[in-house]
Amino acid sequence: MEVFAVEGLPEVREGDDLARLVAEQVDLRPDDVVCVASTVVSKAEGRTASFDDFPAGERARRIADRLGAIQGEEKDPRFAQAVLAESEALLLEAPFILAVTRFGHITVNAGIDRSNVPDADLLLLPEAPSASAAALCESLPADRVVVTDTSGRPFRYGQRGVAVGWAGLPASRDWRGEHDRDGRELEATVQSVVDELAAAANLVTGEGAGGTPVAVVRDFEFGDHAGSENLFRSADDDVVRQALREWTFGGDSHETDA
Amino acid sequence: MEVFAVEGLPEVREGDDLARLVAEQVDLRPDDVVCVASTVVSKAEGRTASFDDFPAGERARRIADRLGAIQGEEKDPRFAQAVLAESEALLLEAPFILAVTRFGHITVNAGIDRSNVPDADLLLLPEAPSASAAALCESLPADRVVVTDTSGRPFRYGQRGVAVGWAGLPASRDWRGEHDRDGRELEATVQSVVDELAAAANLVTGEGAGGTPVAVVRDFEFGDHAGSENLFRSADDDVVRQALREWTFGGDSHETDA
Ligand SMILES: Nc1nc2c(ncn2[C@@H]2O[C@H](COP(=O)(O)OP(=O)(O)O)[C@@H](O)[C@H]2O)c(=O)[nH]1
Ligand SMILES: Nc1nc2c(ncn2[C@@H]2O[C@H](COP(=O)(O)OP(=O)(O)O)[C@@H](O)[C@H]2O)c(=O)[nH]1
Ligand SMILES: [Mn+2]
Ligand SMILES: [Mn+2]
Ligand SMILES: [Mn+2]
Ligand SMILES: [Mn+2]
Repeated sequence: MEVFAVEGLPEVREGDDLARLVAEQVDLRPDDVVCVASTVVSKAEGRTASFDDFPAGERARRIADRLGAIQGEEKDPRFAQAVLAESEALLLEAPFILAVTRFGHITVNAGIDRSNVPDADLLLLPEAPSASAAALCESLPADRVVVTDTSGRPFRYGQRGVAVGWAGLPASRDWRGEHDRDGRELEATVQSVVDELAAAANLVTGEGAGGTPVAVVRDFEFGDHAGSENLFRSADDDVVRQALREWTFGGDSHETDA
Repeated sequence: MEVFAVEGLPEVREGDDLARLVAEQVDLRPDDVVCVASTVVSKAEGRTASFDDFPAGERARRIADRLGAIQGEEKDPRFAQAVLAESEALLLEAPFILAVTRFGHITVNAGIDRSNVPDADLLLLPEAPSASAAALCESLPADRVVVTDTSGRPFRYGQRGVAVGWAGLPASRDWRGEHDRDGRELEATVQSVVDELAAAANLVTGEGAGGTPVAVVRDFEFGDHAGSENLFRSADDDVVRQALREWTFGGDSHETDA
């Protein structure tokens, strides 16, 4: 399997035909997996925003005040308002905003970026990243697309590439019913290949000024396995989410509808 | 960057010279990253165990009874005892055991495997996976080693490859102080490359009977970035861990010393 960044892409702007831009730079093959940073998908889809688009309501002002007090620097309540607007629920309001996006992804600040966004205050995640992936897939001479983001996680320092959308392949290899080398049924049953592809892609795209938002994974074989489409845990299946819902950081942070 | 599985490895047994076994199968280059499944590191290090090694104490019996009641099938309290023995703390006793291993990794059942383990009941994780990685690094004609496991996570379904030990490279690229395309200081500051390498490796090694516990990542460039060695969050830096410590699943599950 080969993983390489696509060089030579321009600054992406609203309305750009991202598939065409990519296909011009690299000779894609049908079974390539094209991993595209959500940043450029969002730019092409016009998901930049300005603070003025999000006049802060009472809740956003309260969240921003509290974060400001905790972090010792003033916070723009319009940013909190943008996060609320993008979220289905908040798991934490403090010591940082941990949000469930409207498409089910759980991440700090609903994945709203302030890096790599010229001429705008904010870059929102694509509204429906799997639909974005499907559209790219249609237009690209490659049959598999993963839309990625970089995101932190509990228990481990640092961020890593994750899938936020995908098309042309299942989210996971489902090993249930398969057996190990000794005929024992497998314990690690569902392998989240789209996240692993996103992580591999992130190694070559990086986080900085590299200008490489797209990576190609060539000769990845999904293999003869069942697939599963689920990636984002539902609240019922997630004890950590349940625990956070009931937990309080220094007073009053609860999972509530956004 | 190229990622490929090493073919032709035998069943690994206690005392095997794993570095030699690997080096016999593949022509390694100094800057290769050799990703080795913890399973075979553990086997070589004699970390198999039988249930009889872990006579269950009172706490293990209580945990097993509770899990048995929740999951509707009898649980061997000696398994719970083995998890306790491998752990520095438990974050959850129910609805599954979420443990902090003695080397700081947080995972279900302290990463004790029951798959791909012939002639033994249990396979414990290596005692000190980064020391294992360093020893492999010394003996291999490659300068970078990552010891991997497959592990679940909150918020997202499925498991993915993670690093449990590493040598010859930092755990993360530290982007702090670097800037994005518009000169703005970066937000996603620490990129956990060892986890991303482990994830990439897992795509080609798989979870099953493939017999490919080792993957080589060739031509991965860490690049001109600062490094960070931290991977496992300390309790102080982890609000999710703090929340779990205070949370109760149906009655009495608390973070407590193991
Ligand atoms: N060519 C080009 N590269 C971009 C653009 N926006 C971001 N990048 C690059 O894409 C990569 C990933 O950027 P990042 O901000 O981490 O995206 P995210 O992970 O989706 O939030 C980095 O190499 C950036 O320099 C763009 O509009 N054009
Ligand atoms: N050749 C060989 N392959 C093994 C051995 N043990 C496990 N494997 C293979 O290594 C890969 C990873 O196994 P897995 O049980 O998922 O390891 P883990 O992720 O470290 O828990 C699979 O392809 C297994 O078939 C062994 O002793 N010899
Ligand atoms: Mn982002
Ligand atoms: Mn990124
Ligand atoms: Mn394992
Ligand atoms: Mn595995």
